[in-house]
Amino acid sequence: MPEQPRPLRLPRRALLGSAAAALASCAGPRGHRNKGRDAKQSARLLDGCSSVLFQGDSITDAGRSRERAAEANVQAPMGSGYAAMAAATLLSASGGEELSIHNRGVSGNKVFQLNDRWEEDCLALQPDLLSILIGVNDIWHARNGNYDGTVEVYERDYDALLARTKQALPDVRLVVCEPFVLRCGAVDESWFPEFDEYRAAAKRVAEAHRAAWVPFHERFERALSFAPAEYWAGDGVHPTAAGAALMADAWLEVVTVRPARARS
Amino acid sequence: MPEQPRPLRLPRRALLGSAAAALASCAGPRGHRNKGRDAKQSARLLDGCSSVLFQGDSITDAGRSRERAAEANVQAPMGSGYAAMAAATLLSASGGEELSIHNRGVSGNKVFQLNDRWEEDCLALQPDLLSILIGVNDIWHARNGNYDGTVEVYERDYDALLARTKQALPDVRLVVCEPFVLRCGAVDESWFPEFDEYRAAAKRVAEAHRAAWVPFHERFERALSFAPAEYWAGDGVHPTAAGAALMADAWLEVVTVRPARARS
Repeated sequence: MPEQPRPLRLPRRALLGSAAAALASCAGPRGHRNKGRDAKQSARLLDGCSSVLFQGDSITDAGRSRERAAEANVQAPMGSGYAAMAAATLLSASGGEELSIHNRGVSGNKVFQLNDRWEEDCLALQPDLLSILIGVNDIWHARNGNYDGTVEVYERDYDALLARTKQALPDVRLVVCEPFVLRCGAVDESWFPEFDEYRAAAKRVAEAHRAAWVPFHERFERALSFAPAEYWAGDGVHPTAAGAALMADAWLEVVTVRPARARS
Repeated sequence: MPEQPRPLRLPRRALLGSAAAALASCAGPRGHRNKGRDAKQSARLLDGCSSVLFQGDSITDAGRSRERAAEANVQAPMGSGYAAMAAATLLSASGGEELSIHNRGVSGNKVFQLNDRWEEDCLALQPDLLSILIGVNDIWHARNGNYDGTVEVYERDYDALLARTKQALPDVRLVVCEPFVLRCGAVDESWFPEFDEYRAAAKRVAEAHRAAWVPFHERFERALSFAPAEYWAGDGVHPTAAGAALMADAWLEVVTVRPARARS
């Protein structure tokens, strides 16, 4: 994209095209890429972070290797979903060892199950940036009779999980991802408006803990205007390759693009 | 990236950030996304293509599912390498069923082995756009005594393969990817300058058949200025997640960005 301005030279040499444009700086102050950086360009969520953790359910899990879970920045333990795609793009643009990325999503998890394994799978890793996508099983398993939780339980548990996290890791930067479904496969109109209440609960929790918000459901709703629901998630819950790429893009936009208030 | 111009609205709504910028139009004339498109924006290699095939060796293969090889646009049969990453980004940006992407890379392949399976794994699929990355095994297996080919054999076989392809598929758009190695793992200085002769042979073949050229080796050489070889390919041949993302970016830039001569 030679017609676009390129204020930073080194990182752009790694990723000349596409994804690079949004990733002008994603390394921390320890990274050599900060040399000569303008203060106005430093207000990205990822700036200064050296470790990133993805947490969630099957959408985050996406077939990741359990055996190699301890290895950072490796494809097999990052799975094949949005987390792996976003991580690979970040690693390509960061170009150095200053960023360490793990994925600890577990298929089927509800928010209370994150809490059950939080010490080992989150706090012990001491992430600088923690991204969570959780909620679809909280409603799905209740709807099919395999769980007695409600939206109130979801919000209470989620709030307590983030409070626990900030107590243990006061400087952690939080990213809360919007739960999403598409109206196809296992999901029909009867999920609504109840599902919207879960989305709203997640957003309230994000705001209460000053977490960044990745609007996955909103992005998929917009994407429906030019491709049907099945194109993005065959069963309404688990994204296709196209859906995962759309999610990675949405996530990267929130985490790596300078927020509007810093653009003036 | 709100500070960048956005001439097309619908596709940008799907991919608001990062990769979208280079993918303003990747659907063909059959796609609804062409509405209102400026003729000057139509000179991208992928324009008008409805099927894409990735071919090559283990770097393209990247663990793809053989059982599901017939399924287009699905993650498991696309593997976890640059082809899968580029495909997911294309599918996310194309937003419709007008694009059908397959991967038929096979680990260990040299150029003559592509020829052996070409009818079934390429010609029968009738791709509109065919991308090939082949060559590292042609030199590697000769170096370790498991193959008696030379750079002359590589060039002759590669040239014959593309001639055969164009005879069977006169309108196919060809993408020839530059073979690459990084000086680490299995690769040391003794590979050079011989390896450069294979790169030069591939480029001559690309030019003879008017194929687009994806400069992978050149991109990795530049990437060495801000991360060591092992960061991009642990064994010098097979890319890490970061290396695969860099390759996907390089590939997308060639296939989806308007060529310089059309920019005036």
